[in-house]
Amino acid sequence: MSPIAATNPNQNDNLGGAESETPDAETFGSDELLLTEIDHVAIAVRDLAAAIDFYRDTFGATVDHREVVESDGVEEALLKVADSYVQLLTPTRDDSPVAIYLDKKGEGLHHVGYRVDDCAAALQSVKDHGGRVIDQAPRPGSRGTTVAFVHPKTSFGTLIELVEE
Amino acid sequence: MSPIAATNPNQNDNLGGAESETPDAETFGSDELLLTEIDHVAIAVRDLAAAIDFYRDTFGATVDHREVVESDGVEEALLKVADSYVQLLTPTRDDSPVAIYLDKKGEGLHHVGYRVDDCAAALQSVKDHGGRVIDQAPRPGSRGTTVAFVHPKTSFGTLIELVEE
Repeated sequence: MSPIAATNPNQNDNLGGAESETPDAETFGSDELLLTEIDHVAIAVRDLAAAIDFYRDTFGATVDHREVVESDGVEEALLKVADSYVQLLTPTRDDSPVAIYLDKKGEGLHHVGYRVDDCAAALQSVKDHGGRVIDQAPRPGSRGTTVAFVHPKTSFGTLIELVEE
Repeated sequence: MSPIAATNPNQNDNLGGAESETPDAETFGSDELLLTEIDHVAIAVRDLAAAIDFYRDTFGATVDHREVVESDGVEEALLKVADSYVQLLTPTRDDSPVAIYLDKKGEGLHHVGYRVDDCAAALQSVKDHGGRVIDQAPRPGSRGTTVAFVHPKTSFGTLIELVEE
């Protein structure tokens, strides 16, 4: 059973078409695709320089943007692939979530970022459908974006970041 | 140290610009971006129907393609996001790699697929740069693609699929 179904008995409303509510700007239903792009796949690595070398040498993917995000305790390098990014992440301190992740799970895929037009609205849709969120409200992300994280517990083990440019 | 550096002392050639070789069709260097798109992020789930519900209800993402890939022991549902896909994967038998993955690591991000123009050439570039591969040669993937998997051991913990449409 879906973890959503346990908390939101209305999740299948869209199947029956029996709902009489008219969608408006405040109502995000399943008819509207809120995800406009895979913004990035984030990969946790121990040695950022070595990972950058690997993607450059093997695939010709180069660094488009690099930033230390002190609030998250990470340094990131973004490699542009079409309109998306490969986000290489490494911790800047021992107590950062990515450091803890590396200790527990090792290097590899950490989260996926989906681009959205309206981060607050997408986050609200997660809450409305019984999803657990990490950020209760949108906050600043890297490269000037506005972001919010969705907890993997209610999204089938996947840590999801909603990214508004 | 990069796992690549241990096997390929020439990995930093492109930094010096001292190489005199002229790139040709047989030579894939770092100047050419081989990745044309994030083809998909693959997510291993236990209950495919419930995961499809979650993405549809919460984000309005719907199934664009669905396929059982017997050779890999998986059923997949592809949700289209711009020119990429969210690939929801569930095992069709207990000995499939995805079943083993779920037992060991639980649900979540399983691999990333990068779209390439030439799967054989991209795979060769991985080998040329000291990368370990799972598929020695390209093979048929889902939805009529040609694919090859790169081993996570030499790609910083990330299982990479190269996808030629």
